[in-house]
Amino acid sequence: MWFIEDETPGYKLQWKINRVLLQKQTPYQYLEVIEMEEFGRALLLDGAIQITEKDEFIYNEMISHVPMLTHPNPGKVLIIGGGDGGAAREVLKYKEVEEVQLIEIDEEVINAIREFFPGLAGVFDDPRFKLIVDDGIEFVKSKQDEYDVIIVDSSDPVGPAVNLFEYPFYNDCFRALKQDGILNIQSESPFFNRDIIKKVTGILNGLFEYVNTYLACIPTYPSGLWSFTMASKAYNYSGASLERARGMNTHYFTPDVFQACFKLPRFVHDFLKE
Amino acid sequence: MWFIEDETPGYKLQWKINRVLLQKQTPYQYLEVIEMEEFGRALLLDGAIQITEKDEFIYNEMISHVPMLTHPNPGKVLIIGGGDGGAAREVLKYKEVEEVQLIEIDEEVINAIREFFPGLAGVFDDPRFKLIVDDGIEFVKSKQDEYDVIIVDSSDPVGPAVNLFEYPFYNDCFRALKQDGILNIQSESPFFNRDIIKKVTGILNGLFEYVNTYLACIPTYPSGLWSFTMASKAYNYSGASLERARGMNTHYFTPDVFQACFKLPRFVHDFLKE
Repeated sequence: MWFIEDETPGYKLQWKINRVLLQKQTPYQYLEVIEMEEFGRALLLDGAIQITEKDEFIYNEMISHVPMLTHPNPGKVLIIGGGDGGAAREVLKYKEVEEVQLIEIDEEVINAIREFFPGLAGVFDDPRFKLIVDDGIEFVKSKQDEYDVIIVDSSDPVGPAVNLFEYPFYNDCFRALKQDGILNIQSESPFFNRDIIKKVTGILNGLFEYVNTYLACIPTYPSGLWSFTMASKAYNYSGASLERARGMNTHYFTPDVFQACFKLPRFVHDFLKE
Repeated sequence: MWFIEDETPGYKLQWKINRVLLQKQTPYQYLEVIEMEEFGRALLLDGAIQITEKDEFIYNEMISHVPMLTHPNPGKVLIIGGGDGGAAREVLKYKEVEEVQLIEIDEEVINAIREFFPGLAGVFDDPRFKLIVDDGIEFVKSKQDEYDVIIVDSSDPVGPAVNLFEYPFYNDCFRALKQDGILNIQSESPFFNRDIIKKVTGILNGLFEYVNTYLACIPTYPSGLWSFTMASKAYNYSGASLERARGMNTHYFTPDVFQACFKLPRFVHDFLKE
């Protein structure tokens, strides 16, 4: 039994499935949990892999540690999407964090994580963690000057996530951030989604002082090469104090990886300049 | 029509094919040239993609520029395998190169490149380029103190390439190199081939003064994340003069990428230490 993920009209990934643990239409999307031969358990939304047990550490560490270290003292963090809890787990590794709010639109995602991913669900019981089941887009509209870091841990820009890649939402995030706040988003593949990266970079450049794209290599995402775009009101990544990450329990991220991930391949550097 | 590449027992890649241009059993391997919807023309050996028009630049630049810059004056270069000519094209971008010898065991690979990949075949007519159709393993046995840089641009360690990952071959390469020579090999995926990376690193550490693994992200290779291992008698990469690469026509490689590619994710760093 194989699961086939359509990446582009000419490119698919095939994963051998040992067991199907859950298949369910939620009010927002089609939710599946499968057990893969190669990457352990995986959570899928509308047929696209969101996380697998074996490589979620790359995405979750890279979307979290880079803004958390760029901000010198991130006490209050909002995660939009990210119902798997992986980004929250990484954020909570920083002792200066007082509160992490996670706003996930689809409660069924949370329930699936609690039932099938014990290694991720632990974070839901952390006293500094607060779960809000609601629409993140509506939620940030009512916030002002409140967060040090906002992480947009969204799925692809189709279905419920489509408006998470638009100006009104980023403008609301800007307002919801404190005067020295940082917004970080996942911004898709530099191979297949250049238009998305260019679009979000353009919007964020109009709002924030510093905007930087950085990369990681994630085996279960299309093309492997994956981008994040960090927008900061006051702190440039080059001034980050990386001492806070020494000795931290990570599997992909290191202070050296922090420095390296901003060194873009020439074709990425070039299309961002166009 | 789809081409399916078996990566591991539980993981396959599927590529839409617009045209099949060549299918041929050579004395060494099964050779195919296809035209893919997503990545242009591709050359396959025994069912594994070797190069595609759209992403070959990543592999070929990364296997070539890193050793070429680490060596301060690479006048004579040997490429073992690499019959597609892509690594030779990159090596010839250095004006200090007097001669590039390319030793490819399978003449049919060369013929297929000449016929179907005009963008790569141009290098075969460069006056500094010398093609040798022979067994690279036998060839290096007879060489001593001759090359500044040897690049092992092999296919996976199955079929004709299996002995390119063994001690006798590396020992012969060591002897074929000058007193300050550099050997560079492609060393497979850190996700799926840790045993290979650890094995070759161990062998090379026993022969060379400096051995360093570095990474690139290559969409059409399994897991995307891909490793190279550079072994040097006299020059550490950290001392490389990157000025020689300024203004060079590359699409992935830059001097910053040179520095960044050695910053390994923690899990790679850790398994290399085990």
